[in-house]
Amino acid sequence: MPIVSKKGKAMPESPIRKLVPFAEKAAKEGKHIYHLNIGQPDIKTPVGVMDAIRNHDLDILAYSHSAGFESLRNKLATYYTKHSISVSSDDILITTGGSEALIFTMGSITDPGDEIIVPEPFYANYYSFSTQSNIKVVPVVSKIENGFALPLISEFEKLITNKTKAILICNPGNPTGYLYSKEEIKQLAKLAIKYDLFLISDEVYREFVYDDSEHYSILQEKNLDNHAIIIDSVSKRYSMCGARIGCMISKNKSVIATAMKFAQARLSPPTLAQIASEAALDTPDSYYTETVAKYKARRDTLVAGLNEIPGVKVTTPKGAFYCIAELPIKDADHFSEWLLDQFDLDKQTVMLAPASGFYSSPDKGKKQVRIAYVLNRRDLKKAIEILKKALEKYNQ
Amino acid sequence: MPIVSKKGKAMPESPIRKLVPFAEKAAKEGKHIYHLNIGQPDIKTPVGVMDAIRNHDLDILAYSHSAGFESLRNKLATYYTKHSISVSSDDILITTGGSEALIFTMGSITDPGDEIIVPEPFYANYYSFSTQSNIKVVPVVSKIENGFALPLISEFEKLITNKTKAILICNPGNPTGYLYSKEEIKQLAKLAIKYDLFLISDEVYREFVYDDSEHYSILQEKNLDNHAIIIDSVSKRYSMCGARIGCMISKNKSVIATAMKFAQARLSPPTLAQIASEAALDTPDSYYTETVAKYKARRDTLVAGLNEIPGVKVTTPKGAFYCIAELPIKDADHFSEWLLDQFDLDKQTVMLAPASGFYSSPDKGKKQVRIAYVLNRRDLKKAIEILKKALEKYNQ
Repeated sequence: MPIVSKKGKAMPESPIRKLVPFAEKAAKEGKHIYHLNIGQPDIKTPVGVMDAIRNHDLDILAYSHSAGFESLRNKLATYYTKHSISVSSDDILITTGGSEALIFTMGSITDPGDEIIVPEPFYANYYSFSTQSNIKVVPVVSKIENGFALPLISEFEKLITNKTKAILICNPGNPTGYLYSKEEIKQLAKLAIKYDLFLISDEVYREFVYDDSEHYSILQEKNLDNHAIIIDSVSKRYSMCGARIGCMISKNKSVIATAMKFAQARLSPPTLAQIASEAALDTPDSYYTETVAKYKARRDTLVAGLNEIPGVKVTTPKGAFYCIAELPIKDADHFSEWLLDQFDLDKQTVMLAPASGFYSSPDKGKKQVRIAYVLNRRDLKKAIEILKKALEKYNQ
Repeated sequence: MPIVSKKGKAMPESPIRKLVPFAEKAAKEGKHIYHLNIGQPDIKTPVGVMDAIRNHDLDILAYSHSAGFESLRNKLATYYTKHSISVSSDDILITTGGSEALIFTMGSITDPGDEIIVPEPFYANYYSFSTQSNIKVVPVVSKIENGFALPLISEFEKLITNKTKAILICNPGNPTGYLYSKEEIKQLAKLAIKYDLFLISDEVYREFVYDDSEHYSILQEKNLDNHAIIIDSVSKRYSMCGARIGCMISKNKSVIATAMKFAQARLSPPTLAQIASEAALDTPDSYYTETVAKYKARRDTLVAGLNEIPGVKVTTPKGAFYCIAELPIKDADHFSEWLLDQFDLDKQTVMLAPASGFYSSPDKGKKQVRIAYVLNRRDLKKAIEILKKALEKYNQ
C-alpha cells in the first residue's frame, strides 16, 4: 500500500480535536456542554449581509478575478484608510479566509527549511500552515505573569538565524487576548528592519479591543512598507466565519505579485461570499459598538468569575475574545478530557481548549487552558460555576 | 528589503495571463474579442441552485465541519454510487474547489523533492500546485497524432524513480479533451499497484462525454481502493465555478485522515457555496442532457470549422470542452499576442490559449493552442472565420 507523506504525518492534531470523541460521548449521555473551547461567535451576522445573499441577481455563478472582486478590494481600501491604514486596492489580495492568506504569505516568502519566529502561545494553525509549507516555527515564549506581553527584543535576537524569514504576531492575540502597544509594534518594526525580515501581523480581531485601548497596525508604522504583511478576515468582525473570505495586505509590490501567482493557481476566492463580504462593509458602526460592548461585558464576567476560583491565574485580556487561564492542576489535557468524560454537575459540564495546542515548546502551558467568551453572560456564569466545582472535585 | 522565496519566483505565470495586457489594450481600442481561451462556461447555473441561495434561512454564517456538511457528503455519496463509484460519506472530503483537493492530496502523499508523473500536455495548475508543494512534475508526453491517448506504459516505467509517489491524470482531459478508455485505466491501475504508487484522477469533467462514450472512473477499478484518489468539483458540472466547492475522494483511510488534518487547519470550506452545491445535486437529468447536447454541437461546429482551415491539425475530443489544435505557425505564443495586438477583422479578433503553458517539457507544443468551446455556435463560427483570415495574413 502506498503511504502518506512525512509532512502529512507531522501535521498536528489539536488537543481540542482530540476531545471531540469525549464531547460526543458526553452529549450522547445527555450531558449539556458549555462550549468555552471554540471561536465560533454566537453573535448574529449583520442583516445586510444575509439580505445581500438573498437578493443576488446572478444567473451564472462565475469565477471572480483571482485577486477578488475589484469592487470589494476598493471598499476594503476605504475601510482600512478609515482605520489609519493607508492602502490601495492593489495592495490587497482577497483570499479564502485568513487561512489562505497565511498559506500564500508563507509560500511567497519562505522555502523549505526556513524559519519564522512566533511569540508563544500562538494560534495553533500557524504551526499547521508552517508544517504544510515545510518551514519551521521558532517560538519565543511570552508569559502569563505579564499578561503575555511582547517578549524582550533580545529574546527574539537570540533566535534569529540565516534561515529566519519573518516574525509572525497575532494582534490582538488568539489565544492570549493580548493587545500589543504602539511601543511594542515599534520595537518589532525596528527589529524587522534591522535584520531585513518580514513582519506578519494577523489582525483579524482588530475591531475587538476594550477599555479605550487602541489597535495599532503594523502598516501605521513608517518605513515598514516593504516588510509588513497583514493577514485579515471578515470571519470574526461580522460573525461570518463560514464565508471564508480574508485578505493579505502588503505595500511590498514583489510580495503581492508573488502571492498573486498562488492566487491565480487556485483560480478565485468564493464568489457568493465576496458578495456577502462587500455588503458587510456597509454594516453600521452601531453593530460594532454593540458587539464590542457585549464582549466586554462577557470578558468582565468571565475574568471576575475566574478570579473567584481558588488557584486560578488569569489576566484581563484587552482584545479578541479569548483568554488564557492557568488552573490549579498539572495536566490541562487530562483535566479537559475528565470534564467531558467523568464529571457533571446536574448533567452539565464545560468543554475547554487545553493550551498545549498553542505551544510548540514541549511541556509549556501544561496547566493552562484557552477560554473563548463567545457565550452569553448567564451561560458564562453557569460555566464558571461548573468549572469551580469540577476543580474542587478533581483536586480531591 | 526582504525578498520573496525561490519557490515564489518559480511559481509559473501562464502564457494566457501574459496575454491579458494585450487583451485589455485590444478592448480599449474597441476590438471585440471572441474568447476561445477560457474555461468559464456561458451555460446558466441550475435555477434550483440560485434559488437555494436566495431562500437560505441562516442568521449566523458559521463554520461548517472541516470535512464539509455531512448532508452534502451523504448526497455526494449517493451521486457517485449512481455513477458506479461506490463510496460512503467517510471517503469524501469537501474542499474549496478542485484546487484545494489537489493541494491536500499533494500535501498528504508527498514530501519536498518527491515526483509525480503526469501525461503532458496537462492542466497548467498541476505545475503550480506542485511548485507550491515543493515537488516535481515529471511529464510523459502524449501526442496529437493519436489524439493524446495514454502514452505507452513502458514510457511511464522509464520515468519511475524512488522519488515517484503518484501518477496524475485528468479524465476527460483539460486541455486535450481526451477520454481515457476502460482499458487505459486498467493499465494505469496495474502500473500503480505494481510500483505501489497513488493514482490520482481529476474527474471534474466526468459528465462531459460525447458520442455514447462512457466515462470509466479509477474507483470502478477493483483492487485499487488503497491507491486511488479522485479529484472532483461542482464548478463545471453545474456551471458554478465561482462556488469553489470540490472534493477529494479516497477509500484509503490513511490518506483521508491525513488530508483531514490539512482541512482542519483551514477550518472549513465556504458555507454558502456548500448550500448551493447541495441544491445542485437535485438538478434534473434534463439539465445535463441539454448541456451535453449543446457542447457536442459546439464541438462538432468547432472541429468541422478548424478542419477547413489549411494546415490546422485537430482530433475530435471525446470529453470536456477543450481541444488542442496545431496551427501552421512556428510560435503560438507570438501568434496569440499578434492576434490581440496587431490583427482585426472588422474590429473583431480571437483570444487563444497558447499550449506552451500546458507543457513542462521545453519547446513542446509550440505550434499548438487550446481552444475552449464555451461560446454559442454562431460565435464559434465567427471566431473560426477570424482565425482562418488571421492565419492567412500572419503567414503572408
